[in-house]
Amino acid sequence: MTIPTRTQVAIIGAGPSGLLLGQLLHRAGIDNVILEQRSADYVLGRVRAGVLEQVSVDLLDEAGVGERMHREGLVHHGIELLFSGQRHRIDLAALTGGKSVMVYGQTEVTRDLMDARTALGAPIVYEAEEVALHGFDGDTPTVTFRKDGVEHTLACDHIAGCDGFHGVARASVPVGAIRQFERVYPFGWLGILADVPPVSDELIYANHARGFALCSMRSASRVRLYVQCSLQDKVEDWSDERFWAELKSRLDPATAERLPTGPSFEKSIAPLRSFVAEPMRFGRLYLAGDAAHIVPPTGAKGLNLAAADVRYLSRALIEHYADKSDAGLDDYSRKALRRIWKAERFSWWMTSLMHRFPAGPGDSGEVGHRMQTAELDYLVNSTAAMTALAENYVGLPFEE
Amino acid sequence: MTIPTRTQVAIIGAGPSGLLLGQLLHRAGIDNVILEQRSADYVLGRVRAGVLEQVSVDLLDEAGVGERMHREGLVHHGIELLFSGQRHRIDLAALTGGKSVMVYGQTEVTRDLMDARTALGAPIVYEAEEVALHGFDGDTPTVTFRKDGVEHTLACDHIAGCDGFHGVARASVPVGAIRQFERVYPFGWLGILADVPPVSDELIYANHARGFALCSMRSASRVRLYVQCSLQDKVEDWSDERFWAELKSRLDPATAERLPTGPSFEKSIAPLRSFVAEPMRFGRLYLAGDAAHIVPPTGAKGLNLAAADVRYLSRALIEHYADKSDAGLDDYSRKALRRIWKAERFSWWMTSLMHRFPAGPGDSGEVGHRMQTAELDYLVNSTAAMTALAENYVGLPFEE
Repeated sequence: MTIPTRTQVAIIGAGPSGLLLGQLLHRAGIDNVILEQRSADYVLGRVRAGVLEQVSVDLLDEAGVGERMHREGLVHHGIELLFSGQRHRIDLAALTGGKSVMVYGQTEVTRDLMDARTALGAPIVYEAEEVALHGFDGDTPTVTFRKDGVEHTLACDHIAGCDGFHGVARASVPVGAIRQFERVYPFGWLGILADVPPVSDELIYANHARGFALCSMRSASRVRLYVQCSLQDKVEDWSDERFWAELKSRLDPATAERLPTGPSFEKSIAPLRSFVAEPMRFGRLYLAGDAAHIVPPTGAKGLNLAAADVRYLSRALIEHYADKSDAGLDDYSRKALRRIWKAERFSWWMTSLMHRFPAGPGDSGEVGHRMQTAELDYLVNSTAAMTALAENYVGLPFEE
Repeated sequence: MTIPTRTQVAIIGAGPSGLLLGQLLHRAGIDNVILEQRSADYVLGRVRAGVLEQVSVDLLDEAGVGERMHREGLVHHGIELLFSGQRHRIDLAALTGGKSVMVYGQTEVTRDLMDARTALGAPIVYEAEEVALHGFDGDTPTVTFRKDGVEHTLACDHIAGCDGFHGVARASVPVGAIRQFERVYPFGWLGILADVPPVSDELIYANHARGFALCSMRSASRVRLYVQCSLQDKVEDWSDERFWAELKSRLDPATAERLPTGPSFEKSIAPLRSFVAEPMRFGRLYLAGDAAHIVPPTGAKGLNLAAADVRYLSRALIEHYADKSDAGLDDYSRKALRRIWKAERFSWWMTSLMHRFPAGPGDSGEVGHRMQTAELDYLVNSTAAMTALAENYVGLPFEE
């Protein structure tokens, strides 16, 4: 592939945000180039979320990459909350007028998007080194990078920063031009992948005095399971035996007894963080996805928020080129942030509701667990409260 | 009045809980004596809450003391939330199938109950000193006290501890038999009473970067207003001028401009606390109201929870005497606590949503304000979320 020197939109990052944006723009006839610091294999090797909102599913369909997802993905119409030793189903579909979520791993979404881009022959540069953004406060931004030892300059109209929390896009913004909001949590998630059948057809979110647990899945024969752990823990501290014993201790006895177990083939510990950068537009640079915000994984919102950003941004760019109107671009940051903060709020709430928190100032720790149990007891007995959970879980509506 | 030496139920405390319990028992033919450490004037001088749930109104009617309340009280069908400079009405009645709340001061409720007890000629001992509870782990409890320098012993079947957070009833329980849960808040409420008309027909709860404010009322010509303040503040720090200026700064300009002001005739600072003691029954001693639990005032639940306890306890005692069944008494603590924890949860939630919190570990403080604004923005645009607020505000249903 010849590396282009000019494009309409330079996209930084070939994760799902960048790939999806590229795909949507390409279908609208907007030329774009994706630059990715890592290799394709590295990108595919990252294990991430696995629950897609209806609106994300619709967007993948719109991008023309939904075929395998509909064949292999699992449509879930409910989730379960487990507390005080009892499982309670939240009927997402009944509470939201028929909406559902799709269980389909982020890795699979990324692979489908990569395959689609390859089929299009659209330019994507992996292992682009020393990526640097220039001139996005003016009309003629450029991106410079090195590939295979050769320096390149890509001239463009717009730059989309889809390169994640640690990426160069947000770091390129002058410090005084950006406000960053952060909340960290005093625990992590220890997650495993194992090729055993799920214990239940739907996800089980467990609140237990020993800590949170989540029984999730990637398919009918592959599970993704988590237990809340200490941030001081190392993966080596957690043998498979210890993991399964701990998970079982946090489930009700009937579920624990039926839990299929087996060797894990992936095991990792992730911290939990709420993070938002404001604004999301700086001249002709637009941030999207993890480059602008991080949610704790409890509400399964990370990939969905990225898709929502891409939806707003792709429409705004299409409007810019098709209608010569910058209204969508001018409003991108406000609109995206309004929805993002609601998802941040939901993710924080669900995290707070389900995890064991240490004692704090003026708080024995026990009072928090009692408050959680009371809220869960209220929740599963209130149609209004369950509807509020459900409408957030399946995804809040877009502001058009 | 001759002080009795024997009764069926000894009630400790002549606040609204004790008086209401006495009234309900009396109407069911159950003999009771109320012992109060303070004078009647002292009890009436305490300024407390002013919003009654529908279920509390119903209970006061059932006790036969609702006549003046219905004449002078203000029925409210909604409340307002003020944030980001905009007022938003929560239509409690429309969201809850027609339920409402009654604005009627706790002082007035207490006065009506006192008058009713006087009319009945039922025994009530004010300024009872050195009240002590004995033998409630057996079948023949007694209460000893001194009145006008004379020692008295009151034999009874049951003791109801309605004597508030600092009372003798909870303090009489052996330390190992009780668990106490507490959460304190890093701010207080500065409240005033003033004889000016309310700025709005309904309560306005304001979330502002400077802190929470509440425009409440006692009548069409008397307001009860609050601003969040530092726990280090003294009442002397707050002139009326400073109070009015601070309150106006936390309202939207249009409301601030129309705010009627005038001299305050009461001004006090109260800390905010969540507190629950478990269980609420110890043999033949039953705790009710503030003796067992405290809520921060944000959700207006304090008096209502006390009334709910009294409802459960009075029914259980009536069942004990009428049906010779202890089922209600045996279940009193569990049932009451289940509802109490939900109200604790709601009061904590509403407090957390509306107040300015200082920075904490891993939290800049600013992120909390953004989360609040997002939650409020979600709330006023979601029927489900508004319904959840409304159904808690008007009072959750009872478990029969």
